[in-house]
Amino acid sequence: MAEAYDFRARATPAIRALTAYDPGHDIPALRLRFAGHGGLLELGSNENAYGPSPAVSAVVQSVLPELHRYPDPAGKALKTAIARLHGVREDQILLGNGSHELLMQLAQVFSAPGEGIVVSRYCFAVYPIAAQAAGARLVSADAFGEQADMPLGHDLDALAAAITPATKLVFFANPNNPTGTWFGTEALAAFMAQVPPDVLVVADEAYIEYVTDPALQSAMALRARFPNLVVARTFSKAYGLAGLRAGYLVADASVVRAMEPVRESFNLNAMALAAAEAALADAAHLESVRRGNAAERARLAEGLAGLGLTVLPSQTNFLLVRFGPDTAAIEQALFARGVILRPMAGYGLRQYLRVTVATPAENDRLLAALCEVLA
Amino acid sequence: MAEAYDFRARATPAIRALTAYDPGHDIPALRLRFAGHGGLLELGSNENAYGPSPAVSAVVQSVLPELHRYPDPAGKALKTAIARLHGVREDQILLGNGSHELLMQLAQVFSAPGEGIVVSRYCFAVYPIAAQAAGARLVSADAFGEQADMPLGHDLDALAAAITPATKLVFFANPNNPTGTWFGTEALAAFMAQVPPDVLVVADEAYIEYVTDPALQSAMALRARFPNLVVARTFSKAYGLAGLRAGYLVADASVVRAMEPVRESFNLNAMALAAAEAALADAAHLESVRRGNAAERARLAEGLAGLGLTVLPSQTNFLLVRFGPDTAAIEQALFARGVILRPMAGYGLRQYLRVTVATPAENDRLLAALCEVLA
Repeated sequence: MAEAYDFRARATPAIRALTAYDPGHDIPALRLRFAGHGGLLELGSNENAYGPSPAVSAVVQSVLPELHRYPDPAGKALKTAIARLHGVREDQILLGNGSHELLMQLAQVFSAPGEGIVVSRYCFAVYPIAAQAAGARLVSADAFGEQADMPLGHDLDALAAAITPATKLVFFANPNNPTGTWFGTEALAAFMAQVPPDVLVVADEAYIEYVTDPALQSAMALRARFPNLVVARTFSKAYGLAGLRAGYLVADASVVRAMEPVRESFNLNAMALAAAEAALADAAHLESVRRGNAAERARLAEGLAGLGLTVLPSQTNFLLVRFGPDTAAIEQALFARGVILRPMAGYGLRQYLRVTVATPAENDRLLAALCEVLA
Repeated sequence: MAEAYDFRARATPAIRALTAYDPGHDIPALRLRFAGHGGLLELGSNENAYGPSPAVSAVVQSVLPELHRYPDPAGKALKTAIARLHGVREDQILLGNGSHELLMQLAQVFSAPGEGIVVSRYCFAVYPIAAQAAGARLVSADAFGEQADMPLGHDLDALAAAITPATKLVFFANPNNPTGTWFGTEALAAFMAQVPPDVLVVADEAYIEYVTDPALQSAMALRARFPNLVVARTFSKAYGLAGLRAGYLVADASVVRAMEPVRESFNLNAMALAAAEAALADAAHLESVRRGNAAERARLAEGLAGLGLTVLPSQTNFLLVRFGPDTAAIEQALFARGVILRPMAGYGLRQYLRVTVATPAENDRLLAALCEVLA
């Protein structure tokens, strides 16, 4: 046996400095642990409690006899459906193994070591990882404070001020994860007018289907005016397909052409391609998910406030909740009862937990457990 | 509408120089075209004509109700099965969205711009792409000539001679795609003894399950002597799961630790995780695939030789066949009959086509079509 050698020393400096994304608890183990005790209440990952369109099940059956074949490397049928939905051309669409892959590749393709990527404080944790993996210099703009109208929300003036001649990319989510906060379409247009036209701005709309505030429309509509605007979407949230991995971005065709060589030809599996297409076709299911979530979001926020907790405004399928100095103890007490929320220490928000809005019965169980724990 | 701007100019120099992997014909379109004419004969992508284990179908059903949940980010159950199969620890395993993803990430993690990646001529096309995407300097060693005992095969002496102090990685496949050629385990051990212990050597064993030559065993057995040996495997070939995307590598735990932060947490979808585990458990199916393929490989090689064609030796589920100066015309004539083979011009082998070994009936159809075309 040869001597032990640490091959991490052979990795690039950027990657040696990188910390992996924390996906949360070991859910499969916890499911077993709580199987005989009412089951695990999974409110940590903002999954869609209503599940995907019922049409997905039949589509999965139809793919089954072809699993030994490679998926369509062009994802043609899914791209056609996406192009129709947004009124864009297929050469303006890039498919990803979840939008996570696209976020990583945007940084990899458009940012050389030392160049700048601008984000806001309390942004989605994948943006800093994507920047670091590319060796980019991460610039983090200040966010609004806890007392602002939109507490902890992205401050677009601060974001614009952080852009320098070295900036290649700006990443934000709207509405934002983990805060649930948002800004309106007019504010985004005013921001875009300040961004140099060769700086790519990535609007991550992972939660856009849950929005009910008419002031916030998709950034898609602004793309004609601002070709440097890239809009990322996912099938993991409102479409209920987190298990299958599918996301996409809509961008200028030259952005897609630049990224295409880095994409692995078969990055989307055959089940994801077929299921995402079926999910897109079922607008009625999406609408019922949106309505059910909006009603429960309001009811759960009220219930949590009724327990004396501060709940941030949200246009998503989750709530960011301030539990105060005892947050860690409360999280542990809920955990002991099989209720999984997402701790926010990694985001510098130790007094907060993120709570997925689930079904009425699941939300009731959360409120009852919290009642016990807080008493 | 703002002026057109070519955002490819904003991509990194390495990625601007990159050409995408060519996955072959537009198969979904061709399936439709030949649907009423005996169907398409898909012999271009080395898929497993026998399909996956029948156990996969039931497993897929069981995952269906959980598609709205994220997959297990640790892939724990699949890693446990892989660890048991190879007698390794779980921290020596990294899972990929197909081995393609792992090959790309090996180059990304271990090779900074300007550093060297060594391959052999006629290597799998993804290695040069992985090297280019990382901005690495690609060094291509000479392969054996057409008249050698192992025609167009990797020349391990030439490969060893190409390694310099700037070399970070060596990539090869054994048996090799697209040539089908191979070298024995003793030759690999002798090669490894010449490689500096901090240079990572990636043995891509995508086709290893099809091997029947006892001189070639998996490189897994050499890992104890050579911790710089990384072995990549896929579920896309003999396991018949190309549509689901699953691959893995076995390496020193420090290699896995170095790569883990770059891996997207949910890179393997839930269907792939469950199906790969079920496929691994069905050793009898794998054995029947190996036997069926070996018998048909010999029969098809004989049939092709009987038509006057030169067939390279192969330990895979495909044959590299020399069709001579009329190769392009022959390929087109087969194409017109709904028979898809893989052209080799991209590999600098214009007089060759790569032919997947399929079921007896499919191989008969190929031979009959070729008989017509060559007449």
